[in-house]
Amino acid sequence: MSEPAQQQKNGHLVIIGGHEDRKHDMEILSRFVELSGGKDANIVVITAASTVPDDMWSMYDDAFGNLGVERRSHLELSSRQEANSEEFVRQVAEADGIFMTGGDQKRLLALLGGTALDAEMHIALKTRGATIGGTSAGASAMSGHMLAQGRVELHPEKGSVSLAAGLGLLQRVVIDQHFSERQRLSRLLTVVAQNPYLQGIGIDEDTALVVERGVGIEVLGQGAVTIVDGRTMITNVADIKDRDTPELIDVRLHLLPAGSSYRLPTDATAPGKGLPLPLLDFLEHVTKRNPIQ
Amino acid sequence: MSEPAQQQKNGHLVIIGGHEDRKHDMEILSRFVELSGGKDANIVVITAASTVPDDMWSMYDDAFGNLGVERRSHLELSSRQEANSEEFVRQVAEADGIFMTGGDQKRLLALLGGTALDAEMHIALKTRGATIGGTSAGASAMSGHMLAQGRVELHPEKGSVSLAAGLGLLQRVVIDQHFSERQRLSRLLTVVAQNPYLQGIGIDEDTALVVERGVGIEVLGQGAVTIVDGRTMITNVADIKDRDTPELIDVRLHLLPAGSSYRLPTDATAPGKGLPLPLLDFLEHVTKRNPIQ
Repeated sequence: MSEPAQQQKNGHLVIIGGHEDRKHDMEILSRFVELSGGKDANIVVITAASTVPDDMWSMYDDAFGNLGVERRSHLELSSRQEANSEEFVRQVAEADGIFMTGGDQKRLLALLGGTALDAEMHIALKTRGATIGGTSAGASAMSGHMLAQGRVELHPEKGSVSLAAGLGLLQRVVIDQHFSERQRLSRLLTVVAQNPYLQGIGIDEDTALVVERGVGIEVLGQGAVTIVDGRTMITNVADIKDRDTPELIDVRLHLLPAGSSYRLPTDATAPGKGLPLPLLDFLEHVTKRNPIQ
Repeated sequence: MSEPAQQQKNGHLVIIGGHEDRKHDMEILSRFVELSGGKDANIVVITAASTVPDDMWSMYDDAFGNLGVERRSHLELSSRQEANSEEFVRQVAEADGIFMTGGDQKRLLALLGGTALDAEMHIALKTRGATIGGTSAGASAMSGHMLAQGRVELHPEKGSVSLAAGLGLLQRVVIDQHFSERQRLSRLLTVVAQNPYLQGIGIDEDTALVVERGVGIEVLGQGAVTIVDGRTMITNVADIKDRDTPELIDVRLHLLPAGSSYRLPTDATAPGKGLPLPLLDFLEHVTKRNPIQ
């Protein structure tokens, strides 16, 4: 019996700022499950960012179980060989939802970056319209340029952050998490001051930025998403010494509280209804249907 | 013997974010003395913001003494009657530099606001070109709209701040102090979200914004001055409930580290050399030669 023609699925990213509720109403995880296809979805949890993968799995095993998901499994990656193995790649190829836990994004990329599993995640999102979620380190790892290291100082400070190559599921942004709780705005300003090519995204704890490729974004949870846009910024960062605070003039800042949602204009000749125009460019970047490279 | 014609003095404000160094190099207090006319200046210290005025005076008595100022005195104000008395007014009328200590800006305004002493401070600044300094509460009190009360929350929160009438030595801004140290950006964003007529100025500890009326500004000390400009902002703050976090789109943020200085264009037809244009409007507000009302 043939299935009815399915509606084209766009693929979603659920980018979580850490400490999402896993025990009570689980608003964010519940949305992740729903976007993955609901209780019948096949969900794979990648714990590679963490040095305690079994503890991580146990936590999400419980949470997804409590949300009624039966087909849930732990993709326990301990080597790049495994990330290139047919068995692991098949696990992702069959997943409707792929969830990356917290830990250290550098560890995650060291195990996963550039492997067949990484490529299969791009296929899952971009070709099959699967949902990819990530929290904390799993969120930071999603963008093409990833925050690798960064001191949190009172002020932006030249040379206090370094970037590395992330998974590239979205481009031209850099993602920080635990954002308001750990007072990371000055760190994100440092990134943007030194890398105005990127827009900075700061996601609070128990808060998610949900991206539907080609369509729009939504903010879920308890906090807010902060966006730092330095494209029109004037700065002396190129001329100052390491550890000095740069002059920053005309940084654009957006604060999107939970409950906000924005859609790309569907008619290219008319601005989107309810879309504030200063957000248009951000929205275009973050929802862009980048091809599989 | 007649004095040689003096150069017109513009009047300076030295707006300090609290905890300025009073024992070592005293960069900020030393500049305050210099702008007041140097060691020969007559400096008056107003401690009315504080409930321990003698302790405050003792601290600044030492500091200004160590800077070589001999004519220094304590204006110890304990009632509005005193603030309307000839003796107290004369003390300000003869001062080259007037310094307001920390404490509580509401207390300072309750004693000083609208009195003859208040009027004499305006004359000192605007007619005689005296220097007025203030630190912490003494800084917040300077603007026409003054932060009176405000919770510091993780996010901007509707209704979490209230304004009151300040001394009005400068207009269309609101000043917060201990800014980076006490993580007050979200509070300042709340002010600006609800009062986009005002530009927010956040001054760090041991940092001063020096304003020369009609001329320009300079940042001194160890930290930075943050400016939050919400004039082009898009927000839903009018439509949300108290304690909710507003959506804020396109807030302009400027960070001016110590060492920065900017001058108004002297030729109205040409932009100022080295003045980033997004700062022009701020500079015009803050240096404006408002008349005595």
